[in-house]
Amino acid sequence: MILQNDLILRAARGEKTERTPVWLMRQAGRVLPEYREVRAKMGGFIELVKTPEFAAEVTIQPVDILGVDAAIIFSDILVIPEAMGLPYTMVEARGPWFEKTVKTEADINKLRIADGENDLSYVCDAIRLTKTALAGRVPLIGFAGAPWTLLAYMVEGSGSKTFSRAKKFLYTEPRLAHMLLEKITESTIHYLKAQVKAGADMLQIFDSWAGILSPAQYREFALPYIADICNALHGVVPITVFAKDAFFVREDLGKLKCNTIGLDWTMDVAESRALIGNEKTLQGNADPCLLYADFDTIKSETEKMLRAFGPSKHIANLGHGLYPDLEKEKVKFFVDTIKQFRF
Amino acid sequence: MILQNDLILRAARGEKTERTPVWLMRQAGRVLPEYREVRAKMGGFIELVKTPEFAAEVTIQPVDILGVDAAIIFSDILVIPEAMGLPYTMVEARGPWFEKTVKTEADINKLRIADGENDLSYVCDAIRLTKTALAGRVPLIGFAGAPWTLLAYMVEGSGSKTFSRAKKFLYTEPRLAHMLLEKITESTIHYLKAQVKAGADMLQIFDSWAGILSPAQYREFALPYIADICNALHGVVPITVFAKDAFFVREDLGKLKCNTIGLDWTMDVAESRALIGNEKTLQGNADPCLLYADFDTIKSETEKMLRAFGPSKHIANLGHGLYPDLEKEKVKFFVDTIKQFRF
Repeated sequence: MILQNDLILRAARGEKTERTPVWLMRQAGRVLPEYREVRAKMGGFIELVKTPEFAAEVTIQPVDILGVDAAIIFSDILVIPEAMGLPYTMVEARGPWFEKTVKTEADINKLRIADGENDLSYVCDAIRLTKTALAGRVPLIGFAGAPWTLLAYMVEGSGSKTFSRAKKFLYTEPRLAHMLLEKITESTIHYLKAQVKAGADMLQIFDSWAGILSPAQYREFALPYIADICNALHGVVPITVFAKDAFFVREDLGKLKCNTIGLDWTMDVAESRALIGNEKTLQGNADPCLLYADFDTIKSETEKMLRAFGPSKHIANLGHGLYPDLEKEKVKFFVDTIKQFRF
Repeated sequence: MILQNDLILRAARGEKTERTPVWLMRQAGRVLPEYREVRAKMGGFIELVKTPEFAAEVTIQPVDILGVDAAIIFSDILVIPEAMGLPYTMVEARGPWFEKTVKTEADINKLRIADGENDLSYVCDAIRLTKTALAGRVPLIGFAGAPWTLLAYMVEGSGSKTFSRAKKFLYTEPRLAHMLLEKITESTIHYLKAQVKAGADMLQIFDSWAGILSPAQYREFALPYIADICNALHGVVPITVFAKDAFFVREDLGKLKCNTIGLDWTMDVAESRALIGNEKTLQGNADPCLLYADFDTIKSETEKMLRAFGPSKHIANLGHGLYPDLEKEKVKFFVDTIKQFRF
């Protein structure tokens, strides 16, 4: 099917675009009353992720309502640990919680390598349904968590300010950490290939907890596995790597076989461009809290951001996911400001 | 009283020292069984902070037990909001919680400018008791939270992953934010001057939530108030500024009228030195999680850190506070490794 709007794919490939394309992390769900309405009738978060019809519906909502230039499949990074044999629950207002965690070599040996097509067929089904319903209006983004971030949850067992148990594992059991990271990486490659086969036009790897590792640990335990994933998917569809808070490896990220590097709002655009080089497309990086401001401030700060990135090799986005209490009107105004801007 | 060990003061002033001095953020409390024993007999955290005899006792414990080159007064950064009229409680396993928060101009007008000597006499008393009991063995560090970090708690009302309410306040009420920051800054200057008068040999400003602001917001709402504090205390005792995660303002921090800049473990030492310049002493920056590792790893990584900083203008420390579950033996080994190392 020919895409009617392929701005994001062209921007990711470094081609000229008529205007800067835009999508928003966490655009599916959370901030939209339309999502909360559908969700209120259904079960918990994980059940929703596992219901392809629901996932497809809320994936498309922001395309209709906010007018973004891409859809991103409604899912969760923790579907991989679950498919590998570590189920989790989502505790209201506290986040994910794993009953079993990884502590020993035996724990790692018990984990399966996830097979994308079978173990995660519900995501592939959701992608297929979404593609059909989108009917080529905009590209669909697939995604996965980066191996270090997934290890962090699988060892820690929950969210954490410091992830000190997960980091302790890296310091005390480096051999086991690499074993686990390899299994996660292999599972993730299967999973992302299955997403592409089902119809994903683009992929993003989220390293949400990148910023709590030292540069040396990031280079040992995180970066090589992201590189493996990029190498395995290179040339298939455009890939974006978003290593939140990992300002210290921007030069290294510039060398990955991926198309786009995500920036959070603490990263200066010109400095990041200098560190990453001119090859890559950059994505980001407005502070999500900017969308609490009045319309005039949103407009002027957004235009300032667009000018900082320049007219090409930029995919506009926030520097992190939307916060649940942001107003739909403000979010839409941010999107509209970007779509109306011309250099 | 003449100090028997003034290594830290000399290092802060950029003078040559026989070896690199060391202390640890959160060394008073938490990690020491001796602290937990005394604490178990007493009340809650805030009551302990307000009991000068207790505060003095646990302030001195790490000097005796760990052999660090400085004591830091056992206290809390939130004593300033409380002295200004916003009391808080410490909720077990969740952190601080404020019943009243700042929302309006009237809320700000109701706040007092804290007078260090009177409103915070319990801290001054604890400093005096500690100084007497230390009898010149090592210097005593006083401290305060940076104005932005204190505003963050006063508006948010509790800890938070995103401090989105506090950041929203900056975006929606910039004039009120500056009003509040000025009152906090004035209170903090009074408070730090009172700490010095009571006997503090050195001061540290903790900007714990520096890293969640954009560079532009940090330069507008955080840095100028830290500069005001540094200017007011300049030349009195050495001052350290620790802006956690604020990698993006290292050049600006280098221009403050302070002696020492704290680095967290994500900040490369050579890069930080290049950005900050050669005038300042640097403090830090081991990953607290390194102290979970085996003794050999702690030794080799600690020596690597010492070599990265070089033989002068360095105060060894962690890049953040000690975590509660670290073993005393490992913590002491880290300190001993630094004390035994010679260039």
